[in-house]
Amino acid sequence: MPTILGQNQYGKAENRVVKITRDGDTHHIKDLNVSVALSGDMDDVHYSGSNANVLPTDTTKNTVYAFAKEHGIESAEQFGIHLARHFVSSQAPIHRARIRIEEYSWERIATSDGNSRFIGADEVKHSFVRKGQETRVSQITYDGERWEVISGLKDLTVMNSTNSEFWGYVKDRYTTLKEAYDRILATDVSARWRYNWTSDEHRMPNWEKSYEQARKHMLHAFAETYSLSLQQTLYQMGSRVINSRSEIDEIRFSLPNNHHFLVDLEPFGLKNDNEVYFAADRPYGLIEATVLRDGVEPKIPVDMTNL
Amino acid sequence: MPTILGQNQYGKAENRVVKITRDGDTHHIKDLNVSVALSGDMDDVHYSGSNANVLPTDTTKNTVYAFAKEHGIESAEQFGIHLARHFVSSQAPIHRARIRIEEYSWERIATSDGNSRFIGADEVKHSFVRKGQETRVSQITYDGERWEVISGLKDLTVMNSTNSEFWGYVKDRYTTLKEAYDRILATDVSARWRYNWTSDEHRMPNWEKSYEQARKHMLHAFAETYSLSLQQTLYQMGSRVINSRSEIDEIRFSLPNNHHFLVDLEPFGLKNDNEVYFAADRPYGLIEATVLRDGVEPKIPVDMTNL
Amino acid sequence: MPTILGQNQYGKAENRVVKITRDGDTHHIKDLNVSVALSGDMDDVHYSGSNANVLPTDTTKNTVYAFAKEHGIESAEQFGIHLARHFVSSQAPIHRARIRIEEYSWERIATSDGNSRFIGADEVKHSFVRKGQETRVSQITYDGERWEVISGLKDLTVMNSTNSEFWGYVKDRYTTLKEAYDRILATDVSARWRYNWTSDEHRMPNWEKSYEQARKHMLHAFAETYSLSLQQTLYQMGSRVINSRSEIDEIRFSLPNNHHFLVDLEPFGLKNDNEVYFAADRPYGLIEATVLRDGVEPKIPVDMTNL
Amino acid sequence: MPTILGQNQYGKAENRVVKITRDGDTHHIKDLNVSVALSGDMDDVHYSGSNANVLPTDTTKNTVYAFAKEHGIESAEQFGIHLARHFVSSQAPIHRARIRIEEYSWERIATSDGNSRFIGADEVKHSFVRKGQETRVSQITYDGERWEVISGLKDLTVMNSTNSEFWGYVKDRYTTLKEAYDRILATDVSARWRYNWTSDEHRMPNWEKSYEQARKHMLHAFAETYSLSLQQTLYQMGSRVINSRSEIDEIRFSLPNNHHFLVDLEPFGLKNDNEVYFAADRPYGLIEATVLRDGVEPKIPVDMTNL
Repeated sequence: MPTILGQNQYGKAENRVVKITRDGDTHHIKDLNVSVALSGDMDDVHYSGSNANVLPTDTTKNTVYAFAKEHGIESAEQFGIHLARHFVSSQAPIHRARIRIEEYSWERIATSDGNSRFIGADEVKHSFVRKGQETRVSQITYDGERWEVISGLKDLTVMNSTNSEFWGYVKDRYTTLKEAYDRILATDVSARWRYNWTSDEHRMPNWEKSYEQARKHMLHAFAETYSLSLQQTLYQMGSRVINSRSEIDEIRFSLPNNHHFLVDLEPFGLKNDNEVYFAADRPYGLIEATVLRDGVEPKIPVDMTNL
Repeated sequence: MPTILGQNQYGKAENRVVKITRDGDTHHIKDLNVSVALSGDMDDVHYSGSNANVLPTDTTKNTVYAFAKEHGIESAEQFGIHLARHFVSSQAPIHRARIRIEEYSWERIATSDGNSRFIGADEVKHSFVRKGQETRVSQITYDGERWEVISGLKDLTVMNSTNSEFWGYVKDRYTTLKEAYDRILATDVSARWRYNWTSDEHRMPNWEKSYEQARKHMLHAFAETYSLSLQQTLYQMGSRVINSRSEIDEIRFSLPNNHHFLVDLEPFGLKNDNEVYFAADRPYGLIEATVLRDGVEPKIPVDMTNL
Repeated sequence: MPTILGQNQYGKAENRVVKITRDGDTHHIKDLNVSVALSGDMDDVHYSGSNANVLPTDTTKNTVYAFAKEHGIESAEQFGIHLARHFVSSQAPIHRARIRIEEYSWERIATSDGNSRFIGADEVKHSFVRKGQETRVSQITYDGERWEVISGLKDLTVMNSTNSEFWGYVKDRYTTLKEAYDRILATDVSARWRYNWTSDEHRMPNWEKSYEQARKHMLHAFAETYSLSLQQTLYQMGSRVINSRSEIDEIRFSLPNNHHFLVDLEPFGLKNDNEVYFAADRPYGLIEATVLRDGVEPKIPVDMTNL
Repeated sequence: MPTILGQNQYGKAENRVVKITRDGDTHHIKDLNVSVALSGDMDDVHYSGSNANVLPTDTTKNTVYAFAKEHGIESAEQFGIHLARHFVSSQAPIHRARIRIEEYSWERIATSDGNSRFIGADEVKHSFVRKGQETRVSQITYDGERWEVISGLKDLTVMNSTNSEFWGYVKDRYTTLKEAYDRILATDVSARWRYNWTSDEHRMPNWEKSYEQARKHMLHAFAETYSLSLQQTLYQMGSRVINSRSEIDEIRFSLPNNHHFLVDLEPFGLKNDNEVYFAADRPYGLIEATVLRDGVEPKIPVDMTNL
């Protein structure tokens, strides 16, 4: 046979599961989008169409919903660990499971502001509004022995309206850009960080707290860095996370430079004193890099985007 | 000529303007997407291609940016009023201007939580994160005499995890739905409300406060209504706004019923006690209605969606 | 009661139905996205939550699928007519039904090019590739007496690489645009046309042929018009359809001006002889107009977009 | 320093360039979306913000447009090769360039069907309609010595309305799926194939012909395979390309299983004889695999999607 099968994986993608936990009248929401990818002894199904080793993708979907009941959803990472362990340990042909999860945050609708005219209105504990900011993501991979947990976020849009410059760069035949000494710096943060927890023999991180802290450190570093380039800001964001969180060894960013161009108002007899900007769509700068704890081997894949 | 020209309008759509206001080190952002549509004596350009009455769409774009400097952006509505008045009053062939604006909210990145390791970090007043929840919208129309201002919001996703039922409906040959006595009620609120301010001779509403209050009343009504149908919830949301805000005469909603189906876990020997739901994409119920102050003529168009 | 209910409608949106018709080994596909909106005696459900007059949206979904079997899908329009008639005639509280349909086209995968190495490969009559060009749309409204059928298309992207000029326009204080004597004209055609068939007593148009012909006439008019403005091109497209198709009385277009800006290559010592363009996203001109048969009352709503 | 910089790259993403070539009255279009990513001696810009080694992303954008004039666009691959060679050979700090290109196809508007009423209408050679089917993609990487060219396509939606089965799979506690002996098989083909051309010393493939042939072989294999699993179909598509095109050594697919569920019409007293289907959105099966020429080392990254 002149052609052979290479790396392959399969499963059900984008299982949307919402779990309501009822603590009396007070309800809690977990809202996830779970994708399952399984690998193993799958030559036959590719070569001949024999499904004898294939757990149907429909079954992987059912398992997601059943596990939301059986194990609850303490955190996206913990839920993914339950799923990955199950597939690898219960099905001999499956040697590796990768669970990817997106999580959407909700916050309570506050009705107790004194303006509500309904008696008992301040006791509504089952009403929520979607927070709508970043999407939290995590990827849990298990091969029967070692765990790899990569968490992160995407679509967290931030802007500094000053304290950003860009000058002193290479100028070649095709360079027309003017140096900037006070510009807007804006990006949609996409970040993935890898935990150094890899074995059931060690204690897991507190996934919820770790996420919250990593997010906070990135935002603080973004706000507090006087920036000479988006690369510099990226490195500050990454090193702040690595230095502050011992459970994280590696972090990778994909940061579009959301250009805000100062509009030329001189033709209208007006001076634009860093006030009025055109927010452009395409093209955009795209800055991507990994920041690691010294001595650690990088494992987060380079491609976080298709562009 | 057997064919004639009917209603027509033209202009530049989706002008993305960001305005930074600097109050010392404290910066403020207004982030708008402005669309201009002009109508008037435009027969010639359609029949013969003569542009003698046509103010270029490029000029309408320039005007948006120049006005952000000349008038500032106090609110989306006030900004639209400046623009609409300008086009109608400065160009004789233009008889009517409609300005549509989307506004994106930003909130400050709080860096003064005591954990920041940088001196003066608590003084960062130029760093922002996009709020990411609903998009605020407004439409300002002016014909040289009367104003019509329709404001609203879209993509405000809300959920009640209980206090919703659906039963007692018509059953025909094609009905298979089971009655529900405790279901999730979730929707993406899209609302447009019309102000009764129509003339320069009267005092304008406080657009910022009115938006904030209308939004709050809708959320409270959503949270506090024990719902027997999404229509009932819609009416409660609308009447709460009309009854609470005298400057608003009419409100229209387009509310998708974001179905959350209880997953059948019985095949796995599990009981789903209103805990685990499948969040479906399509199809979805779509409930649309106008609520008006009694005696008022409705003017908000019926179609808020293409579906 | 100080607030009252205005126009309202409800139903199931975006029912995705695929119908396979088997003519021996030769299969045919109809691929639709059907949205149902019903109106009538619906005060109670809004005021009190009583569903006694409410046919569930779930039932309207079921009806779509059942009718695909019972009536087949001869055309989107004919299918919508079956549905609208059913809802209005079978449920007393329902006085008006509006069916909106999107249709996606498929074409056969041609396997009989002589290169296929499989015996009988040239007989594959059940394999299709989605055409991927415009989406065909139609809206059928019925009130128990009169029919209104508005059909059309969206996202048909076209470009003329020459024979387009733009000059002789109004110049005010904010005008900086340079006149153009040879520019690219590109747009995404969104069109809706209204049929003058309104009664069961008259013979229906041939919906399939009418669509194909209206589409062809629009494309030809776009190609053959030497354009001095997009408005002129729009009018030519509309009048060509009205003049060529007696079953159509009115057509409305929403045409974004997809700007292709000539790139300034002079800084690099190069001359751009109408060769290299930057295809911009936002902002864009937006030109909208109705073209009617003389003497006819316009009925297609003005708003075909939210911008 | 406890943290260090890992893999990094930067450039301008999504440069939309349209090139018109004029052969007398006959025009030709190339419509590309070009993304540039450069790597090299970039430690300083991350650690200190020094841009001394940084060619601005704005310059990479300018280069794309200038090269469209200087070199023309013979094919996406050839254009990317010009760009990658330029960046690596002209800037000492840049050691590696990766160019990603999306290409959109256009076809001529045929006006010479005899129905056109305008003299000379059959000679329109500058009017186009976007084909709207798959997006062609390519990625060209150069490190100063070796080339890697990976081409492919995405969003090519195909369907077989019969000749697909799925049975004989593993059944565990969570399995409820019923076996299928005649189902619809539908997917959006996303494929990337790697050329074995790696050196300037060898003759390049004919990129345009190779694309057209690889696409054809995939479609034929999809149509002609009697499928017992989507994995089997995937392997047939891949091996057909590898066996037919000696210039291609490796191909990887990411194929969503676009579920078309047979609608249960029995509650309505109807029999659904493989006629009426519900086209579902989420979740969906996702099948991914690489097919290689025997003896070849795989190099296409595993992740073609984020789910």
